[in-house]
Amino acid sequence: RVEWDLTAAEKGGHDWFMRKEIFEQPKAVADTLLGRLGPDGSLVLDEIRLSRDELRSIDKIIIIACGTASYAGLVAKYAIEHWTRIPCEVELASEFRYRDPIVSPQTLVVAISQSGETADTLMAIRHAKAQRAKVLAICNTNGSTIPRESDAVIYTHAGPEIAVASTKGFLTQVVACYLLGLYLAQVHGTKFGDEIAAVLAELEALPAQIQQVLDTTTEQAMALARELVDAPSVLFLGRHVGYPIALEGALKLKELAYIHAEGFAAGELKHGPIALVDEGLPLFVIVPPRGRDMLHDKVVSNIQEVRARGARTIVLAEGEDTEAEPYSDVLIRLPTVSTLFQPMLAIVPLQVFACELATLKGHDVDQPRNLAKSVTVE
Amino acid sequence: RVEWDLTAAEKGGHDWFMRKEIFEQPKAVADTLLGRLGPDGSLVLDEIRLSRDELRSIDKIIIIACGTASYAGLVAKYAIEHWTRIPCEVELASEFRYRDPIVSPQTLVVAISQSGETADTLMAIRHAKAQRAKVLAICNTNGSTIPRESDAVIYTHAGPEIAVASTKGFLTQVVACYLLGLYLAQVHGTKFGDEIAAVLAELEALPAQIQQVLDTTTEQAMALARELVDAPSVLFLGRHVGYPIALEGALKLKELAYIHAEGFAAGELKHGPIALVDEGLPLFVIVPPRGRDMLHDKVVSNIQEVRARGARTIVLAEGEDTEAEPYSDVLIRLPTVSTLFQPMLAIVPLQVFACELATLKGHDVDQPRNLAKSVTVE
Repeated sequence: RVEWDLTAAEKGGHDWFMRKEIFEQPKAVADTLLGRLGPDGSLVLDEIRLSRDELRSIDKIIIIACGTASYAGLVAKYAIEHWTRIPCEVELASEFRYRDPIVSPQTLVVAISQSGETADTLMAIRHAKAQRAKVLAICNTNGSTIPRESDAVIYTHAGPEIAVASTKGFLTQVVACYLLGLYLAQVHGTKFGDEIAAVLAELEALPAQIQQVLDTTTEQAMALARELVDAPSVLFLGRHVGYPIALEGALKLKELAYIHAEGFAAGELKHGPIALVDEGLPLFVIVPPRGRDMLHDKVVSNIQEVRARGARTIVLAEGEDTEAEPYSDVLIRLPTVSTLFQPMLAIVPLQVFACELATLKGHDVDQPRNLAKSVTVE
Repeated sequence: RVEWDLTAAEKGGHDWFMRKEIFEQPKAVADTLLGRLGPDGSLVLDEIRLSRDELRSIDKIIIIACGTASYAGLVAKYAIEHWTRIPCEVELASEFRYRDPIVSPQTLVVAISQSGETADTLMAIRHAKAQRAKVLAICNTNGSTIPRESDAVIYTHAGPEIAVASTKGFLTQVVACYLLGLYLAQVHGTKFGDEIAAVLAELEALPAQIQQVLDTTTEQAMALARELVDAPSVLFLGRHVGYPIALEGALKLKELAYIHAEGFAAGELKHGPIALVDEGLPLFVIVPPRGRDMLHDKVVSNIQEVRARGARTIVLAEGEDTEAEPYSDVLIRLPTVSTLFQPMLAIVPLQVFACELATLKGHDVDQPRNLAKSVTVE
């Protein structure tokens, strides 16, 4: 049980735990990465009760999680499949357990839970273990139930997350999943040592980049919140790893501002959601880096389509991207990184926006209505 | 190009093609099932250019589709995995192609497209074929591009679907996927002949059950539309095969009524969406048949939770279900069927509701704004 009469000092000068936790993200990511490289150059997990042979035999990965953690899993799926060539599915914990899932001793179930006590996720891993799957936990709370019942653990060293809506929890979960992907790529031999080192270097660069995003986009995101405080609804579009970011950006608004916000895969726009686009509708679009040429161009053309129908376009794109600019009512510039690393930067202004919008509406962002921090009942 | 000056006679006495097509669903399902049993008792597909050995070697199924067809795929995933024990993933066509998917010659890619011309789906199957996957098409239009480029075809014999929002297309796609699941179960030997015959008998019973739903729930769904015509948003909850029905019910409202409607997995409620629940919010809940005891009870407790927070609960449950009744502001009774067959009944009143609500708002339900029937550009 969390103490709610904590003093303001514990919020580190911020009005809300959530805002404090958003600004702690560079440190949280750095701490999650700390000490991951062993003396022999191999990656280090926190606890591992699986042999290398067992890990080598893994031929399927199923990530199970709830809410925000499931979106961290959706981002990670792209990286894990790309690096390991092991098929990776992401499933809601509440659905996994009851749908007669196909798992085997060669299946690695990855359970993501900030608290390590999420009831749906715990029940799901017990079900998976009964079917002899291996279970790896990604959690933020040392010694909690889910890590204790798992075969391996990566802790996100994010420090306590007090606000109900997850921010640093999410970001460090993505980082931990990426470490897992690299670890499996190492064990399975699908990436050379120098390739793994190159990706690790990108991970190491993240804290400074997240700080840069906080420094350069926070004012803009807050101004946007003031402008959109009465918007009845907001949509979010993304593709590839930007799609889960659209979902997470929307979830934050639902949780905190209680307004209708929905994220869509940009490619689905014409298959239904575009009917919703009307004069003045605020619509966030996450534009992939130009390194994924076709994807980038397709998303830019999506921006043109929704703008032609009256949407107010709020575009997140890398700093040097000049193609999206003419169709952006608001352009939020992100540092230039490779495709798989954009999600960890793009989510930050969306967190700031949701936190500020909810605050302006007079809501308690640390304790949104109807929600509990750790859902310990199914 | 569809002729829009078709005479009223072609609408069979209905004001809209969409309403006509909703009421044609019993016949569309019956026609899709027609002639599926060969003289030797084995199932018959429309075209098959794969040997039984090739089919026996399938160890992974990926369903690719867009919009409503992807929700048909999500329903089918449960049935196909349950009957065949072959892992089955569902992926948006627009995402599949660009995410470096893992497919092999033992992968069966199932492409669902009413028109058989959906550009995203076509590009995705070409990508899959280049990687030597087998492709099976589920389409409604004979000789269209997707079936022509596939290794096997099941046609949904639904007749022309003119309304942009798919209804009979969706229902017959689910039926065709179920036939595919049974076919694979037969080839792989995961179901005995008499077990397949029993499921086929349930499929054969569907047209009369859909007719019963139309006869007994249409007035109620229309009255509900009149009552909720000014609702700014509507939520839908479902679990297991009811989850895609919640998504599809919400998509129909988005497409036709242009209001914010979102479907959720009921188990996710506590992980975020419940913050949206406020006094008077209309919330549809699809209650699983009591045959899935725990799921049924969990959904009933979800109804209590949202109602305690002021939601107006519109509950779809089987006729004999007495447990959900005390928490239902409106109770729509469905015929009693087994778990996997409820989706094909539960969707029908949701279609009627969306069609009527949009009509009352003065929208053209046959041609919603911004949407085209067949999306032939990416």
